Amino acid sequence: MIYLDNAATTKPDEVCLEIAAQYLKQKFYNPSALYAEGYALHKELVKTRSDILNTVANDRDFNIIFTSCGTEADNQALFCGAKRGNIVTTFGEHSAVYAAANELKERGIEVRFAPLNSDGSVNVQCLLSLIDERTSLVSVIHVNNETGAVNDVNAIAHAVKAINIRALFHSDGVQAFGKIHFRIDADIDMYSISAHKIGGLKGTGALILRKNVHIKPLIYGGGQENGMRSGTENVFGIKMLEYAAIKRYSCLENNLNHVKELNSLLRQKLDEKLFSVISEDSASPYILCVAAKGVRGEIILHEVNDKGLIIGTGSACSSNEKKRYSRVILACGIDEESADGILRISFSPETTAEEIQSAADILNETVKFRKEIME
Amino acid sequence: MIYLDNAATTKPDEVCLEIAAQYLKQKFYNPSALYAEGYALHKELVKTRSDILNTVANDRDFNIIFTSCGTEADNQALFCGAKRGNIVTTFGEHSAVYAAANELKERGIEVRFAPLNSDGSVNVQCLLSLIDERTSLVSVIHVNNETGAVNDVNAIAHAVKAINIRALFHSDGVQAFGKIHFRIDADIDMYSISAHKIGGLKGTGALILRKNVHIKPLIYGGGQENGMRSGTENVFGIKMLEYAAIKRYSCLENNLNHVKELNSLLRQKLDEKLFSVISEDSASPYILCVAAKGVRGEIILHEVNDKGLIIGTGSACSSNEKKRYSRVILACGIDEESADGILRISFSPETTAEEIQSAADILNETVKFRKEIME
Repeated sequence: MIYLDNAATTKPDEVCLEIAAQYLKQKFYNPSALYAEGYALHKELVKTRSDILNTVANDRDFNIIFTSCGTEADNQALFCGAKRGNIVTTFGEHSAVYAAANELKERGIEVRFAPLNSDGSVNVQCLLSLIDERTSLVSVIHVNNETGAVNDVNAIAHAVKAINIRALFHSDGVQAFGKIHFRIDADIDMYSISAHKIGGLKGTGALILRKNVHIKPLIYGGGQENGMRSGTENVFGIKMLEYAAIKRYSCLENNLNHVKELNSLLRQKLDEKLFSVISEDSASPYILCVAAKGVRGEIILHEVNDKGLIIGTGSACSSNEKKRYSRVILACGIDEESADGILRISFSPETTAEEIQSAADILNETVKFRKEIME
Repeated sequence: MIYLDNAATTKPDEVCLEIAAQYLKQKFYNPSALYAEGYALHKELVKTRSDILNTVANDRDFNIIFTSCGTEADNQALFCGAKRGNIVTTFGEHSAVYAAANELKERGIEVRFAPLNSDGSVNVQCLLSLIDERTSLVSVIHVNNETGAVNDVNAIAHAVKAINIRALFHSDGVQAFGKIHFRIDADIDMYSISAHKIGGLKGTGALILRKNVHIKPLIYGGGQENGMRSGTENVFGIKMLEYAAIKRYSCLENNLNHVKELNSLLRQKLDEKLFSVISEDSASPYILCVAAKGVRGEIILHEVNDKGLIIGTGSACSSNEKKRYSRVILACGIDEESADGILRISFSPETTAEEIQSAADILNETVKFRKEIME
């Protein structure tokens, strides 16, 4: 089976699993416990926090709040960061931000959505025009999870603060973390990450939070995470996040070059009479979004699945929404016929060129056949 | 090392880990994905839901919402179940409910706390007297996590509904689930459980929710858990919860008898001149709370730790609150001198009588020595 849905989830890294197993089998203690074994784990987590933070920020200016997933991190940023007046976000957000923003509307906060460019990036001028002195929060996804479009969130945050210095700036970094070159600059206040997109485990994420920024918890209780997120620390998941992140960042450039080659190989090999490429060259190479015009993406997904290829049609999360067209793809201005045939192919550093060659063959053959029988 | 802090967390069950490993190594897919491998996982989880539900309730009347921990489940019950007017809870709640209740106060909901009996159970008459037609939610812990006191939550729920049929009834079942005989009766609407107290993993819990009860999500996004809790399903954690729960319930009676014997052995062996027992005979045998009068519990904890024994001083969670006395123990009416010397010893089905004998020796010797040098 060729697995090219790494933007939905990745196979947990086996080397990381092996070294993290000690946190299931020996060091299973509660890190909030007072005895030596509990305290030792607490201290290990202090170092883990710094090590993860320092991959994209620094532990002098930021704290890290471990959460149960990227979705929870996004929810904490929105529900606890939006205070009054209005918030500004985009039509290109992952549903974790998009649905939270819509819930904020129900709670009486005005929510303003900025439109997208055709590649899925936000139209920055429009976004900035929505910000005023009553804006309490701005949230812009870093790498779009459907098209791979990269928003320059440092620059956007800088421009936002120039208009309203008090507005908090959040970015969902789930598809960027561990994948593309990036350091959090002076104007980003909150940044969400997830473990299972980079070889860590489902059930672990984090919100990176600037130290002088005060937001409330989303989950209350025993006061773990410095009172910012209660619940017994998921030590195994957190250590897996650390190991996976350190591994990804230690060979970020090599991985990136490898994935760029795969991405460009697939672009070459896909029959241009059958597929139009949605992702621009400037997109994260980890995601390639294409439209198989005139056929239904979901049907192609199932047919290539039968032939040993796994790809996505967009966000796995939106499959629960039971909608035919991706909200994000339509917001890119793509017509319904193309939107119907959207396929998302997403890579991992472990993907091989041979797999891409086979994937291209399967995709070309399947779409060609499907189009022929429909004619 | 003799581990007697199983109410804080348990060692993950090795047999369960072995069979669950396939969800890390092979079946790592996203259960919301549309291809066969994702859908197969989705279907597996449908059965998992029923199997877990049927241990304490039935899947005809209840749904299960998988959460990241018992704390999150409690938070969803409180924040999403409390609608208006007032809520009624107890001074014996775990901090997941207690802190959430205090946050509800900040949000303009009146919160009424019922006092405790000396064993840590709630004073039911007082609780009922606090309920009126404006009560939207009542939350009563099932087994107190510090003393082991068991509240008859089915009977309490029944009495609550007789006063106000529209009030939702929630119980934190974290220290009861997988440990004591119990079935959710007709009047309980919500029940929180946790995996890592019964040999499952940190980072997995669930809220059992009656089907005709409508509450909002706490975490919004891709619409997983039937829209009730977004975020990619933590399949490995959920399967570990299933395996651990099924294992515990398949030998509940045997485990209970074994733990009762251990509990009663420790009560006999602890020197009654040194220790007063707080937990009553009617408490869950999984928890034995004692007071080493005149010495500090935290000091004893560290001294026995050096001798190879791990015990608690109360809730591991409350260690983050940096308070000298346990809020729950003081609410039992115990004086500060005794409250200072509180120790919580908590068992697992794997604990042996030999370990208890050694634990008693270490505890007697340590407290005796400490008292002598203080005189």
